[in-house]
Amino acid sequence: MIEIEARKEAASRAARLDAVFAALADPTRRAIIERLSRREARVTEVAEPFDMSLNAVSKHIRVLEASGMVERHRKGRDHILSVNTRSLDEVDGWIGRMRRYWGERLDAMERLLRELKKNRKSGPKDRKHGSR
Amino acid sequence: MIEIEARKEAASRAARLDAVFAALADPTRRAIIERLSRREARVTEVAEPFDMSLNAVSKHIRVLEASGMVERHRKGRDHILSVNTRSLDEVDGWIGRMRRYWGERLDAMERLLRELKKNRKSGPKDRKHGSR
Repeated sequence: MIEIEARKEAASRAARLDAVFAALADPTRRAIIERLSRREARVTEVAEPFDMSLNAVSKHIRVLEASGMVERHRKGRDHILSVNTRSLDEVDGWIGRMRRYWGERLDAMERLLRELKKNRKSGPKDRKHGSR
Repeated sequence: MIEIEARKEAASRAARLDAVFAALADPTRRAIIERLSRREARVTEVAEPFDMSLNAVSKHIRVLEASGMVERHRKGRDHILSVNTRSLDEVDGWIGRMRRYWGERLDAMERLLRELKKNRKSGPKDRKHGSR
């Protein structure tokens, strides 16, 4: 049972990552996120700078809502959009893990290079521990 | 001329971000990146753990290569795949910028909350600067 729950949780985490990455794979949607990161805004305000129909922008907004990155609440007659500041945590976590792997590999490469340089500096002339 | 160059550069940066985010919006492709982050590998080694045809995995690999995240070189008869460790820099930069915006907003909120708490603590009883 616990294993099934863990697998379900992993599957839904993967599905959330799929949705967030797919949502971010479009320049209009990234621009909307940048806009809303500065300040929440009405749908019409979000659409204003784009050279496309309100309907086209609304479709992009729905993709962002489905991914969990954008939230909507009503204030009187207005629909107010805002970013969910926790929505990038999982993406950040994933990228951070990759960076750590790479970091370790780069560190190892750096150590090797330093070692090689040191050996070159101490050269054959004043080498203390020569090969026998 | 300089403006045209700058616009071209911005457009190609956007296209690269589109490709990287789209490439990451799939669990198999993310698993391949995780695998290659630990150590470079032959195509057949990369395909091995997946319950899909070599052809299906090869398609995913081609998407990753097109995004610039995975590189291929030949070693004798083998095709060796490795991750391009710089490919996530732009993604990281974009997410970092969003985080800074959010961070500033969260900081402002925190300051406000602290202010409110302080006012509550100093309460009506021992309030020094009451409202006049």
